[in-house]
Amino acid sequence: MNEQEIRTLIERWAVAVHEGDLDGVLADHTDDIVMFDVPPPYDGVHGIDAYRATWPPFFQWQAQGASFEIVSLEVTAGEDVAFAHALLRCGTPDELAAQPENRLRLTLGLRKERGRWVVAHEHHSFPHST
Amino acid sequence: MNEQEIRTLIERWAVAVHEGDLDGVLADHTDDIVMFDVPPPYDGVHGIDAYRATWPPFFQWQAQGASFEIVSLEVTAGEDVAFAHALLRCGTPDELAAQPENRLRLTLGLRKERGRWVVAHEHHSFPHST
Repeated sequence: MNEQEIRTLIERWAVAVHEGDLDGVLADHTDDIVMFDVPPPYDGVHGIDAYRATWPPFFQWQAQGASFEIVSLEVTAGEDVAFAHALLRCGTPDELAAQPENRLRLTLGLRKERGRWVVAHEHHSFPHST
Repeated sequence: MNEQEIRTLIERWAVAVHEGDLDGVLADHTDDIVMFDVPPPYDGVHGIDAYRATWPPFFQWQAQGASFEIVSLEVTAGEDVAFAHALLRCGTPDELAAQPENRLRLTLGLRKERGRWVVAHEHHSFPHST
């Protein structure tokens, strides 16, 4: 039940990201969210206002025809704390043609507040090829 | 209590990493751990045997005199599931001189099994500068 609610929340969030729907992206996030984003800042993005501000540049990049699609998702839920990790196809058609196996790695931390799951932490990254 | 146990576990793990103590690094991890490591593989490192195999090359790199030091750590613990995120100074002296603000971002997912916290997920990354 908790696991299914969280899975639905994350899948809905990913659709909102892909559609450039900022309200949908923000709908289930805490005021004190900490995000480790793909680009800097080095110490992470702190708070919902800073989190909100990261999305318009991403949507602009995505408008080239980029994908943002969950390939796999695993959720571990307790009664009031949960985490999840996912792999996503995320890239422009040219990027995905050049590196078809590359994946955005996503980890989320969630809390249940007043009966409702909310995202308090996100960590987005690509593997670093040397 | 749960939060303090997890904080101690993670701090002990980071010391073991820095000391190149493989048994200490593996001491509190699940057989089914999934790690998103700094380098590929793109789909993550699955299982304790694959996790174990990632460390000797890291220890070899670290032996140049690299740091692996927790700068900040936040833990969110329920009764049987928890997550944590941390920023670490991780680099050789030359790397840290060139980019003193750069941080390794670390997210962990934990479960409590038979009364004991264990790490089931790790996500390690550096921000990607374009």
